[in-house]
Amino acid sequence: MAEGLLVVVSGPSGCGKGTICRKFLQRNEDMNISISATTRSPRRGEKDGVNYFFLTEDVFKKMVSKNEFLEYANVHGNFYGTPKKYVLDKIKKGENIFLEIDIQGALQIKKIYPNGVFVFILPPSMEELKNRIIRRGTESKSDIDRRYKNAFKEIEYINEYDYAIVNDKVEKAVKKLESIVTAEKSKVDRQIELINKILL
Amino acid sequence: MAEGLLVVVSGPSGCGKGTICRKFLQRNEDMNISISATTRSPRRGEKDGVNYFFLTEDVFKKMVSKNEFLEYANVHGNFYGTPKKYVLDKIKKGENIFLEIDIQGALQIKKIYPNGVFVFILPPSMEELKNRIIRRGTESKSDIDRRYKNAFKEIEYINEYDYAIVNDKVEKAVKKLESIVTAEKSKVDRQIELINKILL
Repeated sequence: MAEGLLVVVSGPSGCGKGTICRKFLQRNEDMNISISATTRSPRRGEKDGVNYFFLTEDVFKKMVSKNEFLEYANVHGNFYGTPKKYVLDKIKKGENIFLEIDIQGALQIKKIYPNGVFVFILPPSMEELKNRIIRRGTESKSDIDRRYKNAFKEIEYINEYDYAIVNDKVEKAVKKLESIVTAEKSKVDRQIELINKILL
Repeated sequence: MAEGLLVVVSGPSGCGKGTICRKFLQRNEDMNISISATTRSPRRGEKDGVNYFFLTEDVFKKMVSKNEFLEYANVHGNFYGTPKKYVLDKIKKGENIFLEIDIQGALQIKKIYPNGVFVFILPPSMEELKNRIIRRGTESKSDIDRRYKNAFKEIEYINEYDYAIVNDKVEKAVKKLESIVTAEKSKVDRQIELINKILL
């Protein structure tokens, strides 16, 4: 059985990666999202094993100490992580897993699974990025400045990624992401079994 | 200036690569074909520097001895070759070069320019390949058998290529080739200048 793809998408806040990923997932039903583990409490309607794996902090930390996460982080006092076994088992079965994740998370994943497909979404310009952060209108001036400065630092990590997509037009960016996935599936290394079948 | 792509497409005879490459080139005007050098005489209407660079055997062999070809071969007593400087100069200027070439040629090119994009076209099955060779109807029984046996040997070299496309439907295969080129253009390594421009 040929391994599935692990597609990891990141980008600075305001680059529009959320919209791109949503449209991409709508159109590509063979791409599955992973279920994260978290120590935060379930919100109304959230189900364990569907929205998240809800864990106690104790269990979460034990999993951390046993390297059972592809990546994890503490966000405002709650832990969030991507369970390694869950993802790698699916990939081994030939399923494709799609992760939209921040840059720190992506870098952790790359160390454990360098065979993943790492895609970085860029804004058309830093000016446009700032405008997008401002247009959201949900953040204070100091938050905006912090996010904007942070974006510069984050883009430095682009060299750790395989592909870069400039998000000037959403539809164009989604098509590029689709092309990247199609190309990765077409790699000789990923098609050994198909090739052997043809030669039979 | 970002370097252009060198896209090299091969496949066993009967795999349908000619049709795929023709359609691909019709639709992708930023892909340029290279001009080969040859020692054969010009046919009626053929122009030097347009259809081929027509060279004497003496000049051709001198170029071979000075490693001035990306690849060359002797076909039925005439030499054919891809001039290295011609192709690499265009790539350096940011032009994309597309070469449909036999496997021996592609392997020679890969040694000199490993940064190329090497694509192998496969038939959907070896049975289908044989049928396609037979349907051409231009070859004797022994030629057909030779080509068919040769195809098996050639496919062994697929591991030297980056991508494999199974030609079950021409349109699907052309789209895959287009996706591969789009993905290769999206590689971070090939977009350093664009990324720097965004950060300005």
